[in-house]
Amino acid sequence: MTEFSKSTYNKVIRGSKRALYDKALVYEILDSHFLCHVPYVHENAAIVIPTAYGRKGDRLLIHGSMKNRMMLSLLEQEKVSLSVAHLDGLVLARSVFHHSVNYRSVVVFGSPVLIEDPAEKMEALEIITENIIAGRWAEAREPNEKELNSTLVIGIDITEASAKVRDEGAVDEAFDHDLDVWAGVLEIEAHPGRAVKNEDCKAGLETPASVLNFRFQNKGVKR
Amino acid sequence: MTEFSKSTYNKVIRGSKRALYDKALVYEILDSHFLCHVPYVHENAAIVIPTAYGRKGDRLLIHGSMKNRMMLSLLEQEKVSLSVAHLDGLVLARSVFHHSVNYRSVVVFGSPVLIEDPAEKMEALEIITENIIAGRWAEAREPNEKELNSTLVIGIDITEASAKVRDEGAVDEAFDHDLDVWAGVLEIEAHPGRAVKNEDCKAGLETPASVLNFRFQNKGVKR
Repeated sequence: MTEFSKSTYNKVIRGSKRALYDKALVYEILDSHFLCHVPYVHENAAIVIPTAYGRKGDRLLIHGSMKNRMMLSLLEQEKVSLSVAHLDGLVLARSVFHHSVNYRSVVVFGSPVLIEDPAEKMEALEIITENIIAGRWAEAREPNEKELNSTLVIGIDITEASAKVRDEGAVDEAFDHDLDVWAGVLEIEAHPGRAVKNEDCKAGLETPASVLNFRFQNKGVKR
Repeated sequence: MTEFSKSTYNKVIRGSKRALYDKALVYEILDSHFLCHVPYVHENAAIVIPTAYGRKGDRLLIHGSMKNRMMLSLLEQEKVSLSVAHLDGLVLARSVFHHSVNYRSVVVFGSPVLIEDPAEKMEALEIITENIIAGRWAEAREPNEKELNSTLVIGIDITEASAKVRDEGAVDEAFDHDLDVWAGVLEIEAHPGRAVKNEDCKAGLETPASVLNFRFQNKGVKR
């Protein structure tokens, strides 16, 4: 499969000319971020919570506490979804109406799977950690048995997905082109800032490679 | 009211020591961002979509196309919610288990209100635009009647809300303090990048004040 098939869930209706179902693109966008938003329903209200994720093939991996309401609710659903969005710029048109943003976003649908096997759980936590900051897993102490037992790991086996990408300048009405209004894109970038060492850190430890090499939202995706 | 009362919706259970119900803090976090995530339910699946917002008193304002599935579904609900989250840093502990992120986040619950009065709609669009980039409304052409008629504006009258903030270094187990592992926070910052003028822009137009003065995620909130 190189394209996700379209269903009532993932078919993009609004702004459909920006919709893309190419699997490689969807995965490229997913792999260039590490925070997703996961919606769930609690007592008739839809709620959304941000959380970290990683990807192994067609499975997304998330984790949380054993008592996490969002995580537990996912396990009761047949189909769950999550959303990932990069904000790349503000699109400033001559008219207020055609203001927009440049972005790369994905909505994924899938089947939730409880991951219980200790080796699989450990692998999932490594994938999530490495997706946040590559190289960190090998630097830090691995989870012990007690920590592993207190962590809930859920896989989401992707069944449907769609991407939406806007990556262009302002698009105004022809009759507005002569207005004395600047139009263009103000790019937005996320960067690592200072690395602030813990005060209780052992003396003499240098900033690790994972921190020195960290690049946000830029793992192979064009900016 | 200076604090939101706690209900089954907004009461934070997991990590409750980081939970805050102070109204001023909730509004400060809301006012320092402009993208929220709005969850809704479509054919038994919870879905979440990012969108822009603004705030007027106890009402949040969002807008979209007249046929936007997410927007229309909100109007059918008694209680809707949305989430706003700033990622401020990666918290790197000595143990993988105590890795975390520093963040400022808010979950808001409220009653959806369709805003139909043209003057109220115009005001809402100005508030949303100005919340994204201050000063832009006065620079650009205002929406005309046709544009206003094709825009759906929804208010969300806030009934409950909670904030969660993590703003500290790594917190490890005492028995890990002697490990030869660097611990600390890698700060994450969002900045405006280049201002890329449209090629079809009228000659001689200078970069406007709204662009020159733009500061992302930094409108009065400590970083």
